[in-house]
Amino acid sequence: MKLTDYTDYSLRVLIYVAVHPDEPITIQQISDAFGIPKNHLVKIVQNLGQRGYLLTMRGRSGGVRLGRPAVEINIGEVVRATEPDFGVVECFRDGNRCVITRACGLRGILHQALRAYLDVLDGYSLQDLVERPAALRRSLSVGIPVMDIKPAGRKSR
Amino acid sequence: MKLTDYTDYSLRVLIYVAVHPDEPITIQQISDAFGIPKNHLVKIVQNLGQRGYLLTMRGRSGGVRLGRPAVEINIGEVVRATEPDFGVVECFRDGNRCVITRACGLRGILHQALRAYLDVLDGYSLQDLVERPAALRRSLSVGIPVMDIKPAGRKSR
Repeated sequence: MKLTDYTDYSLRVLIYVAVHPDEPITIQQISDAFGIPKNHLVKIVQNLGQRGYLLTMRGRSGGVRLGRPAVEINIGEVVRATEPDFGVVECFRDGNRCVITRACGLRGILHQALRAYLDVLDGYSLQDLVERPAALRRSLSVGIPVMDIKPAGRKSR
Repeated sequence: MKLTDYTDYSLRVLIYVAVHPDEPITIQQISDAFGIPKNHLVKIVQNLGQRGYLLTMRGRSGGVRLGRPAVEINIGEVVRATEPDFGVVECFRDGNRCVITRACGLRGILHQALRAYLDVLDGYSLQDLVERPAALRRSLSVGIPVMDIKPAGRKSR
């Protein structure tokens, strides 16, 4: 029940760009902020560009901006565009060899569950992910993973 | 968005046992029917036994039976019991290092989507998976993957 890192990182790229609307953003900036290797991000940014979620500005002060307003970037749509495989179990996938596929009730039930999952995501836009832009910008500029900030009073070993 | 093979195979074990209520079932039979290596099934059957879904009968004509009626084995419950990780994206997992976790709206939305997914599964029991027991038994005894049976009139290359 995991989304791929590809989808996870795609959403983070969009979040980063959405909370920095005043400047074109470079892959290096996103890489530094999240600690994600730059080479993972190149294809992601390219894909998001091809789908119109990002707009690429070339040149010395180049980078990317949102290709449309955050409120018009639907999260269900992004996840469908980035997740390579909704093959929940074998009978959803190419090359399925499960002998009971035709008589088994599981496929229909899992399809219904998957639809319910995506229906929820279809109800949200990128704007809903960045409702605290100032706090997000602060976290991104500090670049310290949340879990490294020890709560006061907890002993370190 | 995949369930693990462990969950997939757990459900298949339960299906196999459910459609053969008149005899104790061996791991070998399930392995032969689905073409799943026996060593993959040993732990699965053990786990399903510990959770009361299967009852183990020892001895020469031993094997497993359902531990309770199929209608009382809830699919959402089985998936929760077998799926090791509902860590949809990094911020759901131990060792999360995503810097924006506290300010980001994604986590709440994905939690809601996951709940919707599991809510659907909670509405079904093992009985709903095996509503065509005769057809299931037939597929399981033939043991030919559905995809290998060519529809009439399709040319083979």
